Amino acid sequence: MSGDGPAGDDREDAAPRPPLTAIPPHFRALADYERQAPAHLAGEVWRHIESGAGPERSLAANRAQFDRYRLVPRMLSDLRGGSTAVTLFGQRHAAPILLAPVAYHRLAHPQGEIATMNAATALDTTMVVSTLSSFTLEDIAATARAAAAELGRAACPPLWFQLYFQPDRAHTLELVRRAEAAGYGLLMVTVDASVKHSTFTLPPGVEAANLRAMPRIAHQADPIGGNILFGTALMDAAPTWDDIDWLRSQTRLPLVLKGLLSAEDARRALDHGIDGIVVSNHGGRVLDGLVDPLDALPAMADAVGDRMPLLLDSGVRQGTDILKALALGAKAVLVGRPQLHALAVAGLPGVAHMLHILRAELELAMAQTGRPSPRAVDRTILSA
Amino acid sequence: MSGDGPAGDDREDAAPRPPLTAIPPHFRALADYERQAPAHLAGEVWRHIESGAGPERSLAANRAQFDRYRLVPRMLSDLRGGSTAVTLFGQRHAAPILLAPVAYHRLAHPQGEIATMNAATALDTTMVVSTLSSFTLEDIAATARAAAAELGRAACPPLWFQLYFQPDRAHTLELVRRAEAAGYGLLMVTVDASVKHSTFTLPPGVEAANLRAMPRIAHQADPIGGNILFGTALMDAAPTWDDIDWLRSQTRLPLVLKGLLSAEDARRALDHGIDGIVVSNHGGRVLDGLVDPLDALPAMADAVGDRMPLLLDSGVRQGTDILKALALGAKAVLVGRPQLHALAVAGLPGVAHMLHILRAELELAMAQTGRPSPRAVDRTILSA
Amino acid sequence: MSGDGPAGDDREDAAPRPPLTAIPPHFRALADYERQAPAHLAGEVWRHIESGAGPERSLAANRAQFDRYRLVPRMLSDLRGGSTAVTLFGQRHAAPILLAPVAYHRLAHPQGEIATMNAATALDTTMVVSTLSSFTLEDIAATARAAAAELGRAACPPLWFQLYFQPDRAHTLELVRRAEAAGYGLLMVTVDASVKHSTFTLPPGVEAANLRAMPRIAHQADPIGGNILFGTALMDAAPTWDDIDWLRSQTRLPLVLKGLLSAEDARRALDHGIDGIVVSNHGGRVLDGLVDPLDALPAMADAVGDRMPLLLDSGVRQGTDILKALALGAKAVLVGRPQLHALAVAGLPGVAHMLHILRAELELAMAQTGRPSPRAVDRTILSA
Amino acid sequence: MSGDGPAGDDREDAAPRPPLTAIPPHFRALADYERQAPAHLAGEVWRHIESGAGPERSLAANRAQFDRYRLVPRMLSDLRGGSTAVTLFGQRHAAPILLAPVAYHRLAHPQGEIATMNAATALDTTMVVSTLSSFTLEDIAATARAAAAELGRAACPPLWFQLYFQPDRAHTLELVRRAEAAGYGLLMVTVDASVKHSTFTLPPGVEAANLRAMPRIAHQADPIGGNILFGTALMDAAPTWDDIDWLRSQTRLPLVLKGLLSAEDARRALDHGIDGIVVSNHGGRVLDGLVDPLDALPAMADAVGDRMPLLLDSGVRQGTDILKALALGAKAVLVGRPQLHALAVAGLPGVAHMLHILRAELELAMAQTGRPSPRAVDRTILSA
Repeated sequence: MSGDGPAGDDREDAAPRPPLTAIPPHFRALADYERQAPAHLAGEVWRHIESGAGPERSLAANRAQFDRYRLVPRMLSDLRGGSTAVTLFGQRHAAPILLAPVAYHRLAHPQGEIATMNAATALDTTMVVSTLSSFTLEDIAATARAAAAELGRAACPPLWFQLYFQPDRAHTLELVRRAEAAGYGLLMVTVDASVKHSTFTLPPGVEAANLRAMPRIAHQADPIGGNILFGTALMDAAPTWDDIDWLRSQTRLPLVLKGLLSAEDARRALDHGIDGIVVSNHGGRVLDGLVDPLDALPAMADAVGDRMPLLLDSGVRQGTDILKALALGAKAVLVGRPQLHALAVAGLPGVAHMLHILRAELELAMAQTGRPSPRAVDRTILSA
Repeated sequence: MSGDGPAGDDREDAAPRPPLTAIPPHFRALADYERQAPAHLAGEVWRHIESGAGPERSLAANRAQFDRYRLVPRMLSDLRGGSTAVTLFGQRHAAPILLAPVAYHRLAHPQGEIATMNAATALDTTMVVSTLSSFTLEDIAATARAAAAELGRAACPPLWFQLYFQPDRAHTLELVRRAEAAGYGLLMVTVDASVKHSTFTLPPGVEAANLRAMPRIAHQADPIGGNILFGTALMDAAPTWDDIDWLRSQTRLPLVLKGLLSAEDARRALDHGIDGIVVSNHGGRVLDGLVDPLDALPAMADAVGDRMPLLLDSGVRQGTDILKALALGAKAVLVGRPQLHALAVAGLPGVAHMLHILRAELELAMAQTGRPSPRAVDRTILSA
Repeated sequence: MSGDGPAGDDREDAAPRPPLTAIPPHFRALADYERQAPAHLAGEVWRHIESGAGPERSLAANRAQFDRYRLVPRMLSDLRGGSTAVTLFGQRHAAPILLAPVAYHRLAHPQGEIATMNAATALDTTMVVSTLSSFTLEDIAATARAAAAELGRAACPPLWFQLYFQPDRAHTLELVRRAEAAGYGLLMVTVDASVKHSTFTLPPGVEAANLRAMPRIAHQADPIGGNILFGTALMDAAPTWDDIDWLRSQTRLPLVLKGLLSAEDARRALDHGIDGIVVSNHGGRVLDGLVDPLDALPAMADAVGDRMPLLLDSGVRQGTDILKALALGAKAVLVGRPQLHALAVAGLPGVAHMLHILRAELELAMAQTGRPSPRAVDRTILSA
Repeated sequence: MSGDGPAGDDREDAAPRPPLTAIPPHFRALADYERQAPAHLAGEVWRHIESGAGPERSLAANRAQFDRYRLVPRMLSDLRGGSTAVTLFGQRHAAPILLAPVAYHRLAHPQGEIATMNAATALDTTMVVSTLSSFTLEDIAATARAAAAELGRAACPPLWFQLYFQPDRAHTLELVRRAEAAGYGLLMVTVDASVKHSTFTLPPGVEAANLRAMPRIAHQADPIGGNILFGTALMDAAPTWDDIDWLRSQTRLPLVLKGLLSAEDARRALDHGIDGIVVSNHGGRVLDGLVDPLDALPAMADAVGDRMPLLLDSGVRQGTDILKALALGAKAVLVGRPQLHALAVAGLPGVAHMLHILRAELELAMAQTGRPSPRAVDRTILSA
C-alpha cells in the first residue's frame, strides 16, 4: 500500500510501549486488541502488519463479507452436552479455530512464536507455523510439546507447518524433511504470494530462522522499459501445478493449498491429490479487489463435496463470523492478524485471551442458533 | 459491547443532571429524548442502556430495518370516526403501542417503574412489568389501579408481567402465582437471554425487587482451557421447550414468548399451546447480527395466520415504524429504551409526552395513508 | 423536524445579510444559491424553509431519487431548430419548468412574490401563486401583466393559482372567484397537507394576504389522553373526494390535484373529473418516509395514459433531474425551495438567474441525449 | 463545477511548487501522484483539471464502476513467456495502455506535451495528441521520433492525433492534412464535447498551438430570455453524422470516435465506416450523471462484435481496472488526468514512473488471474 511512506503517515511514531503485564478488564473483543496494538508497535511495523494491497478494498471487504449474512436464532433448544470440537484430516481439534500462518512474530513481541505457541497450546488450539517464522520450526514444535506436558496433557494440539516453495527444489525439500522430523503432521502450501515482492525491511534481530542458509530472489524491475514481472526471475520461479505434483510425490503428509478462491482451482487440487484447501485472499495483502473468500466458498464447497475439507481464512474477528463460515461450507477458520495484535499488547496471556474470547463468542452464537456442535450448523441458520 | 470500559470512553463522565421539571418546548420526537438522556444519566448507566452486543450492527439494523420500506399515501379519504384502538387476547388497548419489559427503571429515575406506570396509565397504555423491576410487581400493579381511579376511569389498562425462568422451578412458579394474585392478566416469557451473562454492576439502591429471596447463577468461565459456555451451570439451567410445557400446565393466563425470530419457532410455539409471540432481537443486546425482526415478521405471520397475534419489538422510534410493523403482520409494537430516555430526562411527564408523540405520529401516518383503524392497515400502504 | 429549537441549533444566528446587489460570477448551479442562502435568512426562517418532517429521510430521498437513474447519451444528432417548449392544458410554456406554489415569499425578501413573479415573467415561466402568498393574488397577477408589457410581450405566461380548502366552503369559493376574476387560468388544489399543523410563527410584516378576513383552525391536542388527531376539528375539516366533487361543480377552470403518489388515487382523480396531477410528497414536509415521487411516477403514468398530464414536484435541482422526470412520464416539473434560496440571496435577478441555469442545464442534457424537444424524451435515455 | 470560485474555495492558493527533481521513494500508486499534485499546480488550474460537470457524480462513478467487479484468481498457472502486448488497427502496442488526449499539458509543466511524449516513448506507449495541445502536433511527433532514436529503437510507438471539428470545415481539413503530413497514423474524433463551453481562462504562455490562425466560437447566452443553447451558433456548429461522413471521405487514416456510450451509436458508427470507438464519458466533464463507461461496454461490445475494437476511457487508475475493462470487452484503455498529476509532480520521470506503475500492476493482476496475455482475459476472471 502506497501509504507506507512519509506522505501517508499522519501520526507521530512514538516509541512503542512494552507489552502490558495484565489484560485490561474492559477488553472483551478482538477489536479491543486491534485498537490498542498500534501503541505497542513501531509505526512501520504496525503499518506493515495492517496494510493490504492497493487501496485496500479487499481488506475492508474481508470484514464486510460477514455482515452480508444475518443469523436466524432458534430458541429453547436443549444444548446440554454440546461441544465445539471438530475432526480435520483425522485429527481432533478443540474448536474450528486455528491460528493462521503469520510471518515473523518477533515483530510484535520478543518471544515471538514461542509465546504464541504457548498460548495456543494452553487453549488447545493448533498454530500453523510459518516458513517465515522468527524462531526455528524445531524450537516451536518443542515448545508445544513442553507446554502440553506442563499442563498435564497427553499430547499437544496437532502440529501444522506452512510451506513456501523455495527457488531451489532442494531447499523446499529440506524444509519438508525438517518439518516431518520435528513432528509436524500436515503441510499447508501457500500458493498466492509467489509473484508479489515486499518492500518491507526487517528490523534488527528479526530474521527468517528457517531459511538462514537459503538464497532468496532479489527482484528489481527496470523502471524505464524492459521486463517488469513477465520474463523476470521472480515470475519464472513461481510454483506451478507441476511443482505441486513433485511435492505430492515427496511426502506422505496431508497437503493443504492456501490461497485458492475458485471452484475450478478446487477441482484441480482434487485432481492433483491435494487433501484440503484454505479459501483465502491472503488477508487482502497480494492483489486488491479479489472475490471475497466467503462469496467463493459455497461454489467451492459444491465442487469438492465431501472429498476434502475447506478452511476459511481472511477477516475472521468474532464468533458469528466462524458460524457463518461453517454454514457456508467451511470446516474451520484461520485467524491471522489478531495473533499479532494480542501478542503485541499482552504477549502470551494476550493471545490466550484472544482465543478464549473467540471461542466464547462461538459458543454463544451456537447456543442462540440452537446448535450443539459444528456439524449441526447448516445454511438454515442464515437468513435468505 | 467492548466500549464499556476506559479505552472506549471518550467523553467525560460529568455528574448526571436531575430530571427536568418541564418538558422543553422544542421536544417533538423520541430522538430529542434520546439526545438529551446522556446528560441525565451516569456514564456507565447510559452505556449499559444504549449498548448492544458485539460491534452493534443489530442495534443499527433495528433502526435501519424500517427505512427499507416506503409508505404509499392515500389522499382525500374520509377519516371521521377513526381510532387507533386494538384488541389483543380479548383485551382492549387504546393504541397498538405497549411499553416493553425493561429492567431496573430506577437506573433512570428514583421513582422508577412507579413513575413509568403512572405515565402509561395516564396515556391508557399497557406497561409490561419486568421480572427485574426495581419496585415489586405488586407495588407497580397497585400504582396502575390508583392512577386509573384518580383519572376517574373504570379500570387501568391491561396488566402484563414479563417472566424470566429461575434456576429453580419453585421460584419460577412463585413469580407466576404472585403475578396472578396481583391481577396481571398475561405472562410474557423472555426466552432469548438465558445464556447471556451481563457484566454490569447495579449501583447502590437499585435491586431486583421481585427476586430478593431467590438465588441467581454466578457464571465465570475459566480463562485458560476448560468449559466456557457448553457444560456450565448457566447453559444447563437455560429453559427448553419442556420448561414451556411445564409452565403451560401451571397457569391459565395467556402465555406470550418474547424473542423468537423464525417461522419454525413460531409454529413450534403454536404446537406448545402458546398464545402469542413478541418478534424481537432483544434490542440487539444478546447476539449481534441476528435477522431483523421486521424481516422475520412476514414469514412468521404466514406461519401462524390468525391463530395467534404477533407483536414487534426492537427499534420502534416513530409513528411510521408502527404503521410498517402493522402492515407486515404485527398487531402491536413494544417500545423499550425510549422509556428510560424519557424517564431520565423528565420523569413521569417525560414518559407521558413520549407516548403522546408516538401516538400523534401514528395518527398522522394513518391519516396520510387513509386508514381509519389499525385493522385497515395492510401491505398496500408499502411500496413494492 | 425536532431540531428547530435550541437543542438542535448548532450555529449562531447572526443577523441575516441583505440580498446581494449583483450575482457572484462563480454562481453556476442551484446548489450555489442553497449554500449561500442561510447567510441571508434569519436562522428560524432558514430552518423552516429547509426542514422536512421527522428525521428527514424523504427530504434526502427527494434528491437521491434522481441519482438512481443514469442517462444514455446520443451523439452527433442534428439538433438545429430544437426547443424546450411544451403545451399543458392547452397553454404554451417556454419550458417544462414551473415555480411550485410556495408560501410567504416575504420570509425571504421584502418584495416577496412581486419579485418572484417579475423574474418568472422575464424568463417566460409560470409561477404558481400560493393561497398563502404574502401579497394578494390580485397584486401578483397584475405584476405578471405589467412585467410582460414592459418586456414588449403580447401576454404574460399562463397564470395558475394554488388553492387550499378553507374550513368553510364559502371562503374556499371566495378564493376561487377571486382567482377567476384576476385572470388565473388553472387551480392547483393541494391535498396532502390538510392534517399537518405547523408550529412555525410568522415574523412581523409577513401574513397570508389572501386570507385576511378568513378564520383558521387552531389545533391543540390534549397532551394527556383525549383526542390527538382523530376526532379533532382539524381532522374533521380535512377535504375529501366529496369536496373535490363540489369544487368541480363550482368552476370551469382546469383543476389539478397536488400531492398524489399512487396509481389508485390517480385513477380516482380521473373518475372525479380532475384535469391533472402534481406527483409530489410536498418536499418531504408532511410525512417522512413516503414513496419517492419519481418511483411513484411510472405506475401513475401507466394508470392515466394520455387522459391527463402528470407534473413532478419535490427535489428538482438541476437539468438532468427534469430530463429524468420527463423520461418517466412527467410533462413538466415544479421547483420549490430554490425560489426562496435565490430570492433571499439576490432578489429578482437571483430568481431569474436560477431559472436561467435550470433551463441551460436542461438544454445541455437534451443536446447530449440527442433530443430536440421534450416530446422526444422517452425511457431509452435512461440506462436499464 | 460550481465550486470553482471564491465560495467553493476552502484552501489557500499558495504558489505552486516546482516539479520534484527525484521521485519520492514511497510513491507506489497513481493515487500518490494525485495526492501530491495540488501542491505543484496553481489552485485554479488544479480545480480545472480535477473538476467534473455538475455535482460530479459521474466523476465519482468513474472510479466506483470498477469496484463493482471482483476478480477471481487462478493459482499455479505457468506464465513463463507471458506478455502484455496488443495489436490495435494493425499496429503493435507494448501494453493495452494509452495516454488519452488531454488539452494543454503546459498547464502542468513548462515542457508540456514534449515531456509527456518523451516519457511515453521511453515506456513504449502511445500518447494521443490533442487538437488543443500547447505545442504543435508537428513538434510533438518529432519529439517521439527523436526519443525513439536516442533509445536505439527502430521506431517510436504509433502516433495518434485527436481531432476536434472546427466551425469551418476548411480548418478541420487543415488539421487532418497536417496530422497526416506529420506521420500520425490514426485520427480520434472527440464527439461528446461540442456543445459544452468552458469558462476557464488559460494563463499567460499557454495556448492552443495548433489553432493559432483559426477562429473559435464565442458563446454567450442572453441571461434574460432569448436563446440559451438551442438556436445558438455553438449548437448550430456542432458536428453531426453528416460531418463524420464528410471526414471519412477526406482521409484514409483509421477513424476512431471518442465519447460514445450506447450500442445504438456504436452500430451507427459501424454503418458510417468508423474503425473504432473510445467508450468514454469525457472523464465526467461534460454532463453529470451519464451511464458508466464500464456499464455501457458489454452491450456495445455485443453490438460491434469483431468488426471494430472498443477502447475504454474514464476513471482508470490501477492495473486491476485495466483487467476488468479487458474482461468486459475493451481492447485497451486510455488514461487521462494521471498524466497531468505525474507531469506536475515530477515532469518527464513522473509520467514514466506513472506508466511503469500501471503496467506493473497490470502484470501482477494478469499473473494472479493466470492470464499470460491480454487475449487470454475473459469474463471468467470476474465474479458473477
